[in-house]
Amino acid sequence: MQYYTDTEWGLDIGQVNMAVESAFADHGRGLVQMPPKVYITLPDGDFRTMPAYLPSLSIAGVKIVNVHPNNTKKGLPTVMALTIILDIESGQPIAVINATQLTDMRTGAAGAVAGKYLSAKKEIILGVIGTGRQAQAQVTAISRELKIRQVKIWSRNPEHIRKFADRFMEFPCRASSLENACDCDVLVTTTPSRSPLVRSEWIHEGTHINAIGADAPGKEELDPALILRAQVFVDDPAQAIHSGEINVPISQGIYRATDIAGTLGEVVIGKKKRAGPDTITIFDSTGLAIQDLAIARIAMKHGKTIDLPFP
Amino acid sequence: MQYYTDTEWGLDIGQVNMAVESAFADHGRGLVQMPPKVYITLPDGDFRTMPAYLPSLSIAGVKIVNVHPNNTKKGLPTVMALTIILDIESGQPIAVINATQLTDMRTGAAGAVAGKYLSAKKEIILGVIGTGRQAQAQVTAISRELKIRQVKIWSRNPEHIRKFADRFMEFPCRASSLENACDCDVLVTTTPSRSPLVRSEWIHEGTHINAIGADAPGKEELDPALILRAQVFVDDPAQAIHSGEINVPISQGIYRATDIAGTLGEVVIGKKKRAGPDTITIFDSTGLAIQDLAIARIAMKHGKTIDLPFP
Repeated sequence: MQYYTDTEWGLDIGQVNMAVESAFADHGRGLVQMPPKVYITLPDGDFRTMPAYLPSLSIAGVKIVNVHPNNTKKGLPTVMALTIILDIESGQPIAVINATQLTDMRTGAAGAVAGKYLSAKKEIILGVIGTGRQAQAQVTAISRELKIRQVKIWSRNPEHIRKFADRFMEFPCRASSLENACDCDVLVTTTPSRSPLVRSEWIHEGTHINAIGADAPGKEELDPALILRAQVFVDDPAQAIHSGEINVPISQGIYRATDIAGTLGEVVIGKKKRAGPDTITIFDSTGLAIQDLAIARIAMKHGKTIDLPFP
Repeated sequence: MQYYTDTEWGLDIGQVNMAVESAFADHGRGLVQMPPKVYITLPDGDFRTMPAYLPSLSIAGVKIVNVHPNNTKKGLPTVMALTIILDIESGQPIAVINATQLTDMRTGAAGAVAGKYLSAKKEIILGVIGTGRQAQAQVTAISRELKIRQVKIWSRNPEHIRKFADRFMEFPCRASSLENACDCDVLVTTTPSRSPLVRSEWIHEGTHINAIGADAPGKEELDPALILRAQVFVDDPAQAIHSGEINVPISQGIYRATDIAGTLGEVVIGKKKRAGPDTITIFDSTGLAIQDLAIARIAMKHGKTIDLPFP
């Protein structure tokens, strides 16, 4: 059994996007085993257990990931993850992977796949709400699938915007008001908000939105009126209803599960698509275990390992 | 983060039994978080993901365990397990534990707790069906809670019986027919059978049975008529209905979930008990994640560790 320490080092973003796209295609075709993630509540946060099996890649395993908003005060990441990989033939654990960075990358990749298939334009102005690790991963991954002409960034903290812009020197980056950041072709929302930040009237027709932030019951970033105007695609219906962007509107009876336009997997295999150039499309991302397996398979070819005796 | 290699070394069986009993007590009082285990099917077996949080012991984590019956041909254990432990405060993974041996020990401990509370006698003749690791763990753990006067062993393979008896020189061990092994005070069944081995007419009144083998849909070791004659206690109703000894009779409509007499946790806290000295009692064991956490906490004080960089 190997422990993989620096797994993100040397990973090719284009290759990660492709692997995640292929995992979504398998999901769209019903070729994966992936029960909904299981939540355990701890005093200051929670952790989620995400088992799956992706036969086309011959990979099976479990990601374990926590969310502890107050960890930053302790100098620890808010989100930390381990992925355990099992041998398909024998069930033996063969890899323990530090998956903290990989979690950002595979979420970025899902956003890139959604952008590739759902954005009305190939050259875009990208609006970014939030400047954390998820926001950075989205911009990095989307830039491989769409040509970014400009990035409009909003954050409560101007210092965070400056650092964000410094990291992405290759694109013209501009600090924006919330409303102005929403005036874009593709919008990415990455905050842990528990009340809508993005108003419906700020979003013009034809915009595509990656709603990344909401990942637990009670979290929402988008005005429910915007959700009702849009075609909403989800990564997984059960997870999205439970903890995605649509969880609050659904629990309030404003939105219904039957209103969901389809899954990203169905979009990738061509079964579902953007209705027209003026439609607003939303990708409601909750994060799938199959994304973690797809990126784990690439990560296991890179990085440093420590040999562990097992069984 | 530490990797624990030789976790079973030096563990005190009495201490393990006590910790597992205390975990069952918390379960009986509704003080644990433990969703039902999640199954993923692989080509030649399956694996189960078992997350839980035990506040009284301040321990949270996930066990991942496979069952691959053909592994013996490859020289690998049929069942292999890893337990991941997270820090309660931050959610950070702090331990990866080789839990293969611990899985046997904690199942043995549950059998011992069931025997302690449900056996009609304190000095017993112990019947054992099957001679594998689970059978050995049951005898070892039960011997700490009840005085074993004799062990009657049945296996298809006489060589296995000889080896089993050699291991337990401290008790008079006797190779028995299936029927004769069932003529005992406490019976332990540990086979992966998919059709009943133990006939109802072989079991006399007052016997207690630990039904250990059935741990997946379709598995059963006991005659349904015996189940109907007995008080059936389960570790967890949802898991027992899905994959325990009662799963087949329930799926066939012979037995109902409402017929379950109670949980082992309820027995430990005195809320439920054996109806009388002549009652036949059955403990339907499927294995709980809280047992794995209870034993992990003890194991983390023992054995060799390898330091792993994280985050």
